[in-house]
Amino acid sequence: MMYNPLVLPELKEMLQTRDEKGLKEILEELHPATLADFSAGLSSQETWELLSYAPVPRQAEVFSYFPLPKQVQMVREGDPQRVAQLLEAMPHDARVDLLKQLDEAQVEQLLPLVRPSDRRDIRHLLSYPEHSAGAVMTTDFAWIPAHVTVGQALEQLRQQASECETIYYVYVLDRYHHLVGLVSLRELLLAQPDQLVDEIMQSEVISVRVDQDQEEAAQVLAKYDLLALPVVDSQNHLVGIITHDDVLDVLAQEATEDALHMAAVAPMEENYLEAPFTRVWERRAVWLSCLFIAELFTFTALAHFESAIKAVTALALFVPLCISTGGNSGSQAATLVTRALALGQVRLRDWARVLRHELLMGMALGLTLGAIAFVRALFTPESVLDGISTWRLAQVVALSVAAICLWGTLVGSMLPLFFRRFGMDPGYASTPFVATFVDVTGIIIYFTIAQTLLLSASGQ
Amino acid sequence: MMYNPLVLPELKEMLQTRDEKGLKEILEELHPATLADFSAGLSSQETWELLSYAPVPRQAEVFSYFPLPKQVQMVREGDPQRVAQLLEAMPHDARVDLLKQLDEAQVEQLLPLVRPSDRRDIRHLLSYPEHSAGAVMTTDFAWIPAHVTVGQALEQLRQQASECETIYYVYVLDRYHHLVGLVSLRELLLAQPDQLVDEIMQSEVISVRVDQDQEEAAQVLAKYDLLALPVVDSQNHLVGIITHDDVLDVLAQEATEDALHMAAVAPMEENYLEAPFTRVWERRAVWLSCLFIAELFTFTALAHFESAIKAVTALALFVPLCISTGGNSGSQAATLVTRALALGQVRLRDWARVLRHELLMGMALGLTLGAIAFVRALFTPESVLDGISTWRLAQVVALSVAAICLWGTLVGSMLPLFFRRFGMDPGYASTPFVATFVDVTGIIIYFTIAQTLLLSASGQ
Repeated sequence: MMYNPLVLPELKEMLQTRDEKGLKEILEELHPATLADFSAGLSSQETWELLSYAPVPRQAEVFSYFPLPKQVQMVREGDPQRVAQLLEAMPHDARVDLLKQLDEAQVEQLLPLVRPSDRRDIRHLLSYPEHSAGAVMTTDFAWIPAHVTVGQALEQLRQQASECETIYYVYVLDRYHHLVGLVSLRELLLAQPDQLVDEIMQSEVISVRVDQDQEEAAQVLAKYDLLALPVVDSQNHLVGIITHDDVLDVLAQEATEDALHMAAVAPMEENYLEAPFTRVWERRAVWLSCLFIAELFTFTALAHFESAIKAVTALALFVPLCISTGGNSGSQAATLVTRALALGQVRLRDWARVLRHELLMGMALGLTLGAIAFVRALFTPESVLDGISTWRLAQVVALSVAAICLWGTLVGSMLPLFFRRFGMDPGYASTPFVATFVDVTGIIIYFTIAQTLLLSASGQ
Repeated sequence: MMYNPLVLPELKEMLQTRDEKGLKEILEELHPATLADFSAGLSSQETWELLSYAPVPRQAEVFSYFPLPKQVQMVREGDPQRVAQLLEAMPHDARVDLLKQLDEAQVEQLLPLVRPSDRRDIRHLLSYPEHSAGAVMTTDFAWIPAHVTVGQALEQLRQQASECETIYYVYVLDRYHHLVGLVSLRELLLAQPDQLVDEIMQSEVISVRVDQDQEEAAQVLAKYDLLALPVVDSQNHLVGIITHDDVLDVLAQEATEDALHMAAVAPMEENYLEAPFTRVWERRAVWLSCLFIAELFTFTALAHFESAIKAVTALALFVPLCISTGGNSGSQAATLVTRALALGQVRLRDWARVLRHELLMGMALGLTLGAIAFVRALFTPESVLDGISTWRLAQVVALSVAAICLWGTLVGSMLPLFFRRFGMDPGYASTPFVATFVDVTGIIIYFTIAQTLLLSASGQ
């Protein structure tokens, strides 16, 4: 790890004593992410002051690494002229991420201060729908026209270098800005200066459409091990690129969403501890209430078997064990299949293979748990047996546990495929969802077995 | 997306008719990942034949993109001399990933055929423990000595370019191979040829130690938006680099592990459908059985309240509703806190803030669910009331649901912090774990409230 020769109190003192030489050195040498860590301890005013010791391009670079809430606060408390200057110099995707967080009034106050070409670029990027490739891409890519030589290309790159997010992939465009090729800086460096770029470029360029989902774009970049992925419109005009570090952000965002699906929380953009209480309550309560209302059917199902419960108390005592078996086996199967879908190990058309696999697995797991249940049920105390033999009760419980385990496994494995089939995120087949469904049906399985084996046999 | 001008039957026909020109063109122009997709439909022999139409470096590149099981099968059925040639030309991390999958006997047969320098490199990389930075890094990085000029550096890079995984970050080493600086190809390109590299390089280089966890390394690369992260030993010798695409693999691997924790499955390296049945059964059965045995305590807890259940049948009917409330609210809180920990939004020392937050949230959620429960319980059928007033029963159920919801939320939010505190993965505080714990304790809460409010009041 980087050695940080500086502590916060020192930095504050340097700011107070206006230690120009020291501050300039810090701003020049530390990584922007490290500077952003430090500035967490500074007020907006102090941070603006710190930034003023660096030239504007460096200010913009460091500012982009601040967490979004800090950026928003600094914009609110900063001089609009300085903010506009920063916006001009910031990476094109980072500044749009910031502007999306501001009130419309603030945006309309700032934009007229930004130079027209940047203003157009901002309005353009702001227009793409959330979660689309267009919303995560940046427009500051390096490009060269077709038909130039390698030497000319390198010269043009030198000129663009300071304004581009990456110059390691150079896109070749025709006169109408259609994407016709890709050449890496490595290839340019190895080629002869008088060679034509057309001869060394790759003409089969992997790209995504601007309206594709950001997650699909991330998967393409990962699959082909790319540094950056070009984004084109429906006429194959190059409109932007998505870089490898954007993909890491997209994946983190999607992972959070998946985890929240699994925990049955509506998606939240905000930081866990900083989000407003009522909004968090709302998002958590909506899902918990839905699950709760679904669970009300466990009461209805149990009430249906009221006479069986009254006849043999022991039956009621095994209810939580039976239904939790379904929930656990179901969520296990659902997670495995969801994950296998995400990794591409399983496709929709493999559903029959998955079903066969989980049918056998559900039986094997059911036998395992049924055996444990059988042994435990043999030790049921006399007082709750109401005249039933423990031997017979153990049979009922073991058979029910095995059947419910198999049922849970089958439901859990098929639901993600079912959701995917109908264009929904398989992650919705989450543990609480599966568990709730299997709870209600598990009660019905359990008491149907009990009534068949136990009560009819003993004549009740 | 790339346009694929080729379908599998065509490719097979080209192989049969030995269409040299066509095959050479395909191998040259398609992306290795696309070629790997195609070869999924070819046998090992056909794939070896296809590869033979490309020069060895290109063969190695394409081969590295095959899924590991395919690579293993091809090695088994291939000519050892050709395999050794491929190993020499493969990326250094990819070939070690392959060799880790082979039997020791196979490795010992192949290694003597590989040239000594590569053999040493392989043995070295094989020696790092799984999940360490050393195990994912590659040793084919670009480097230059200190004190050269920019022009000399570019010349050296041109010579190394074909053997390096990336040349966009160039590491500056002193004569003892200590890492003393980093210069990007962009910076080299913008500098004057006669400038000294020492003057333009960054001397504060962000690196990880070879024995650090791969996940930590991935986080560092992501935080600083790096293309590659240098890996050093305890004396700051540069021993390898981890590239951005390795990090995507690491993150996918860790995400799978986390998901499996959450579903209570012991980690599996294998593909979901291809792993041996008995091994999968074992891994799934171990956890399901543990949870099942823990759930047996629900029976014990319920048996303890046998007289209450016998006195009022309705109490038994609300058991699944009450305990599922605890499970759902607990898993929601656990997932939110685990995710916030993973994103760095919450640290261990914030436990008191989290507790306060979840205490309020648990009460708010408990009131919400309690209100729904109250309304539902008012409609309990007469036949299961056994003389208790619905009004009183509704109070018991509502209060229990609220209390268990609060309890589940507190347990769920504190368990991940507890696990982290004792050096364990917070992900172990998974839904099934939390649900099982809260099931048993929820029964005790419910019947304690019932006995206090209902049975003692009615004199039983």
